[in-house]
Amino acid sequence: MVAVNLTLDLAGTFFFALSGAMAGVKHKLDIFGVLVLSFVAANSGGIIRDVLIGAIPPLAINEWRYLAVSVLAGGITFYRHALIERLRSPVQLFDAMGLALFAVSGADKALAFQLGPVAAVLLGMLTGIGGGMARDILVAEIPAVLRSELYAVAALAGATVVVIGRQLHWSSLTAMVVGAILCFSLRFLAIRRGWRLPIASGRTF
Amino acid sequence: MVAVNLTLDLAGTFFFALSGAMAGVKHKLDIFGVLVLSFVAANSGGIIRDVLIGAIPPLAINEWRYLAVSVLAGGITFYRHALIERLRSPVQLFDAMGLALFAVSGADKALAFQLGPVAAVLLGMLTGIGGGMARDILVAEIPAVLRSELYAVAALAGATVVVIGRQLHWSSLTAMVVGAILCFSLRFLAIRRGWRLPIASGRTF
Amino acid sequence: MVAVNLTLDLAGTFFFALSGAMAGVKHKLDIFGVLVLSFVAANSGGIIRDVLIGAIPPLAINEWRYLAVSVLAGGITFYRHALIERLRSPVQLFDAMGLALFAVSGADKALAFQLGPVAAVLLGMLTGIGGGMARDILVAEIPAVLRSELYAVAALAGATVVVIGRQLHWSSLTAMVVGAILCFSLRFLAIRRGWRLPIASGRTF
Repeated sequence: MVAVNLTLDLAGTFFFALSGAMAGVKHKLDIFGVLVLSFVAANSGGIIRDVLIGAIPPLAINEWRYLAVSVLAGGITFYRHALIERLRSPVQLFDAMGLALFAVSGADKALAFQLGPVAAVLLGMLTGIGGGMARDILVAEIPAVLRSELYAVAALAGATVVVIGRQLHWSSLTAMVVGAILCFSLRFLAIRRGWRLPIASGRTF
Repeated sequence: MVAVNLTLDLAGTFFFALSGAMAGVKHKLDIFGVLVLSFVAANSGGIIRDVLIGAIPPLAINEWRYLAVSVLAGGITFYRHALIERLRSPVQLFDAMGLALFAVSGADKALAFQLGPVAAVLLGMLTGIGGGMARDILVAEIPAVLRSELYAVAALAGATVVVIGRQLHWSSLTAMVVGAILCFSLRFLAIRRGWRLPIASGRTF
Repeated sequence: MVAVNLTLDLAGTFFFALSGAMAGVKHKLDIFGVLVLSFVAANSGGIIRDVLIGAIPPLAINEWRYLAVSVLAGGITFYRHALIERLRSPVQLFDAMGLALFAVSGADKALAFQLGPVAAVLLGMLTGIGGGMARDILVAEIPAVLRSELYAVAALAGATVVVIGRQLHWSSLTAMVVGAILCFSLRFLAIRRGWRLPIASGRTF
């Protein structure tokens, strides 16, 4: 189970690191800046979650595989960014997978650390969207996760399923699989069909 | 006493959440982005303080009322932002109340966690201004709290009163009330009379 | 040994606080905003490191000398920014010294808290570059440390020497001195000779 968790987590890390590296290349950072941004995008959500639940030192700092996977994704992107760019559509799908994996594993870990249901949902969502927020802050942009098609909402839905499922005595794995499928499906359909949440109407001063 | 503390804290949360939601509406975030920004503006200061003093998990994560109040303020703002905008002047007053409440409760909590006097003053100020800083970082602006009329200074003054008062063996409540009144008065007068601190003179390269 | 550590740390704090204050003056913050930015630039790296390794409350919050030194540097810069600006070249050198001191002391502290070698290198680098990143985020710019001449790489090199040195059973002091010299030399030569890391080639969409 731990092995499954780690594998899924590292897969999510890889996809988010790709998005961080793309942002770095786009803003003409040098290769080391690109690698830093890969690591930040992939691991900030998990690190913040771990700090907030008291899991010190955070796993992403203390377990070298997270760094290795981030650097790998960053290096590939740096040298093959034209390729990654052509694959934008698959990358968005992978990003949605990363989001789903992080949201459910974040909520699950918060529950394992005895946090309450509302806190676990919040932390699951934060694990999913935190990396993307940190990435965009570092390149001085308003975080895309606050404006993209159902991005944060999908993470919220996935995390909520995990918390409710656990209260219904589902196994941890079942709850996470169902939550991840819901999160991924929501995000996937939102991208495909251009679903967006409303913005405030009228003249906005 | 705990009930009083919680009530004041939630009042401050509400007013800061309004300011976060207004920033979100102004930058055309969708409704969920607006709610995230409400939560961030209202709770970042307290969450950072709790992390720094070792109060894990942070109260604002673990106590659902903070989330509920933030979402309520965000929802009202989203659907009635023109009204909130017309009330700009009262909102600024409420914001000053929030600042005062957070600065003194932040300093008080730091003392309760055995931090020294300088640390407690710093953490009180940070609790007061942290949310506004996080809000502005998320919309890619230089934090207004670093430039507004005596904003951070008022928080510093309120927190200082709490720390000095406690060393003079005032009760916690007395120290907080006096500190909050000082902080609020300073900020209120600064807004009314346009008091500003100096900026560096001369040609600034 | 503790006294040596503290002295070196405070020297680094002073130089980083200068850089924060210069950024604040440049962006026309008022004097208090300038002081906040001094403190943030000088202490964010160490505070984040302390949170991540569980050294709560962080030293820079709990030990008044860090605040005093930051405020001193900020005040000098505010009133004498033209002078500091003329000294840009020496300030860059001092900044390089600060970087070297922070990178090696950060790695050393992480090892003292039982973190693994990869984590210690990461945390050393973060201690070195964290303050500059926070400073630039607060003035809504892309962190210069992600683009400057070998900035983060020099910090990484210094931290790596500390970790390897300790595994070779060097004394803590020896490892830190060698690491700091390497870090400083790399950064110094990079500034002098304009060494830069490559950025991604070709059309970057």
